[in-house]
Amino acid sequence: MTRKLHLALHPYGVGGPGHHGLWKDPSIAKNASIDINYYIQQAQAAEHALFDALFIVDSQFINATYPSHYLNRLEPLTLLSAVATHTKNIGLVGTASSTYNSPFNLARRFGSLDHISGGRAGWNVVTSFDTGTSRNYGLEEHLDYATRYGRALEAVQVIRGLWDSYEDDAFPADVERNVFLDPAKLHALNHVGEHFRVDGPLNLSRSPQGHPVIFQAGVSEEGRNLAAQVAEGIYAPGGSLEDAQAYYADIKRRTAEAGRDPDHIKIFIHGGPVVGSTDEAARQRAREILAEDNDFDRNVGLLGRAFGAHDFSQYDPDAPFPDVAHLAERGGRTGAARIIARAEAGGLTLRQVVETFNDHRTSPFVGAPKTVADTIEQWFAAGTFDGINLAFRNNADLALFVDGVVPLLQERGLFRTEYEADTLRGNLGLPIPANRYAADRDLVDA
Amino acid sequence: MTRKLHLALHPYGVGGPGHHGLWKDPSIAKNASIDINYYIQQAQAAEHALFDALFIVDSQFINATYPSHYLNRLEPLTLLSAVATHTKNIGLVGTASSTYNSPFNLARRFGSLDHISGGRAGWNVVTSFDTGTSRNYGLEEHLDYATRYGRALEAVQVIRGLWDSYEDDAFPADVERNVFLDPAKLHALNHVGEHFRVDGPLNLSRSPQGHPVIFQAGVSEEGRNLAAQVAEGIYAPGGSLEDAQAYYADIKRRTAEAGRDPDHIKIFIHGGPVVGSTDEAARQRAREILAEDNDFDRNVGLLGRAFGAHDFSQYDPDAPFPDVAHLAERGGRTGAARIIARAEAGGLTLRQVVETFNDHRTSPFVGAPKTVADTIEQWFAAGTFDGINLAFRNNADLALFVDGVVPLLQERGLFRTEYEADTLRGNLGLPIPANRYAADRDLVDA
Repeated sequence: MTRKLHLALHPYGVGGPGHHGLWKDPSIAKNASIDINYYIQQAQAAEHALFDALFIVDSQFINATYPSHYLNRLEPLTLLSAVATHTKNIGLVGTASSTYNSPFNLARRFGSLDHISGGRAGWNVVTSFDTGTSRNYGLEEHLDYATRYGRALEAVQVIRGLWDSYEDDAFPADVERNVFLDPAKLHALNHVGEHFRVDGPLNLSRSPQGHPVIFQAGVSEEGRNLAAQVAEGIYAPGGSLEDAQAYYADIKRRTAEAGRDPDHIKIFIHGGPVVGSTDEAARQRAREILAEDNDFDRNVGLLGRAFGAHDFSQYDPDAPFPDVAHLAERGGRTGAARIIARAEAGGLTLRQVVETFNDHRTSPFVGAPKTVADTIEQWFAAGTFDGINLAFRNNADLALFVDGVVPLLQERGLFRTEYEADTLRGNLGLPIPANRYAADRDLVDA
Repeated sequence: MTRKLHLALHPYGVGGPGHHGLWKDPSIAKNASIDINYYIQQAQAAEHALFDALFIVDSQFINATYPSHYLNRLEPLTLLSAVATHTKNIGLVGTASSTYNSPFNLARRFGSLDHISGGRAGWNVVTSFDTGTSRNYGLEEHLDYATRYGRALEAVQVIRGLWDSYEDDAFPADVERNVFLDPAKLHALNHVGEHFRVDGPLNLSRSPQGHPVIFQAGVSEEGRNLAAQVAEGIYAPGGSLEDAQAYYADIKRRTAEAGRDPDHIKIFIHGGPVVGSTDEAARQRAREILAEDNDFDRNVGLLGRAFGAHDFSQYDPDAPFPDVAHLAERGGRTGAARIIARAEAGGLTLRQVVETFNDHRTSPFVGAPKTVADTIEQWFAAGTFDGINLAFRNNADLALFVDGVVPLLQERGLFRTEYEADTLRGNLGLPIPANRYAADRDLVDA
């Protein structure tokens, strides 16, 4: 069997990373990020193109310096549930914080989405990056890395346990015998751990996927280990081909070391393809997009996000980049380290750091359709990803990729020509986890 | 203007209070409570009948003795969001616990539902009745009444503050001036209270209703006071006409005393009408329904719910009702007090208490269509309710009411012949709350 490429769509609404001026695009409604019809349309377009999933990011802290798409957006689960009944095959991956939600609530909400969508739910587990988030949830100080990641691991374990509360045949609903539930097939978890105590059982039966698919974005050491232990999908950092190869190999190795099949963790890189009629036209457009996002004041604000919403406008922009490493300890440590390393290596001023803030976001997938398909094929063959999490500036850009590039990927046998399944697990080639209690029973019976 | 009656639908799925054997009805799918198409169909039927709202109840604790509908059901917000895009006018009221959710999350989720539904969201605030719920959320012991109700009041206040984070004109999205947000119109709440510290702002603009409608079910002294202070809709306990009159007058009085317009709190009683071709046929059916639900073992389990899931099967059923009042202190105090009072007044054994467990649920709305319409008119005129939260055993019963009773209520000018609005506030006759910050600005400008 040829290894198949997976494609997801990350709808940008009125803006996205490196595209913070997108709200000015006349083809995008100014309220796109809070308009459910925008998301339904994006999901249907992605489903028409046979993409694996719609991927909804999230955050829970803003101030007035935050970019457009952060300021005003729908809560991901409410959004995806509305999208579910207007689609049939596409996966629905929503971001939710394990730091600021109870496992019992998350288990119910993602389990419900999996029932509502007929088996298409995915949970992108985040630990919350913005240090200010803590003050929206009653905590004086953001939890440190070790606590957040320990909590994330335990949350996933608890939630998977709750999803197993009922065995698949728990409800005979036998009218003659007057038996709705077989009580032997309902199981309390009785979890007592370092971060959580949760008795269970969950008041919801196993969903079509058994467990919704777990996504994660592991960049730090803690994040990579969490991914290796529990993730089935990864939103990878990207970078150069060599960076992506190294990350891919590292995650697959850690996953194997954790005793799991490395093929059961699908690594997606971010891809914002720029497709043009010619390579040069596409490259020119990519340069324009990059330049367009060089709003100095806004990028000063964005820079602060990795350092606990620190106000960089207080510094002389033409002095050397200030010593702020300590501010990132609890927040965007990995992103901050990258910024500091770049500033130190280049001896950059604050202004130079801000002006080159988005340079690392340059997509490798720029060119005429054939060039983009070639690059994707080359990167895919080089072991850099299992899938791409695609983002487009607008529907015209989405159409250029879907109509121009996807057919080439299909011709080469890299991408599906029809859905393999109507569940996200089925399309990603992930197994349905056995119910832990049913498995025990099999052992007992054997 | 004639005072208008409001009608809501409380879909029972595979069971409801006093109808715990409903899963045996061949016209109801055994998985109705987890089938989104069931809820979409119920909502569309209710909307076709011009009902004000779909009302979704909830709970977060079960064990194997719990009745069918509790065991396995969708999380209310995920459910209602999916229903929202398949309906246009009907309100969508979801139950969520202020005891086991963070205000920031609730504000986002109900605000998102209000955006997705175009202004039809309502929040039924509950403090969680099952004492076992605490152990699904890491707490050894259920919070006591005073703490739960203090927390509920503060949660509503915080959430309303978060819903005001943006003034209505906060997003000029002015391309020429390069201004997406007017930062002067984004407000942090900076709440520090007894139960919560929440900085804000919320990352979501004001929704079409300004604030989703707040419902509450206030029976205890604490519940009635909470309702008087913040509720705009009440799910009232019902009982005899005199009970309902007394409750209605009490809530309206307390609301006025709290400085609010008593017309801005709409009191709904539970109504499970039984409509037949003749009065006698309907009465006979009502008796059969009551008898059908007299499953002794199940009702022993249900009885325990008010007393912290206490196991009553340990007692001699023919001995006097045991002394268990202390078990209800933190849980279903009001319901438990009613049970104990009845047992004491009648000198009942445990068996007699169980066998008459559902008697108080007998609906006043039993008879031929004209009799039911007459009774509703009489009760409505007597000041017992502003609306009825209707529950039906199945679609045939729903149709008997909609086709037989609703036209009579319309002829008499009691019920609408078309929707007044496409928001829940509009149909309930509730004002859109002013944004606290915009109001301040008006005062400053004046």
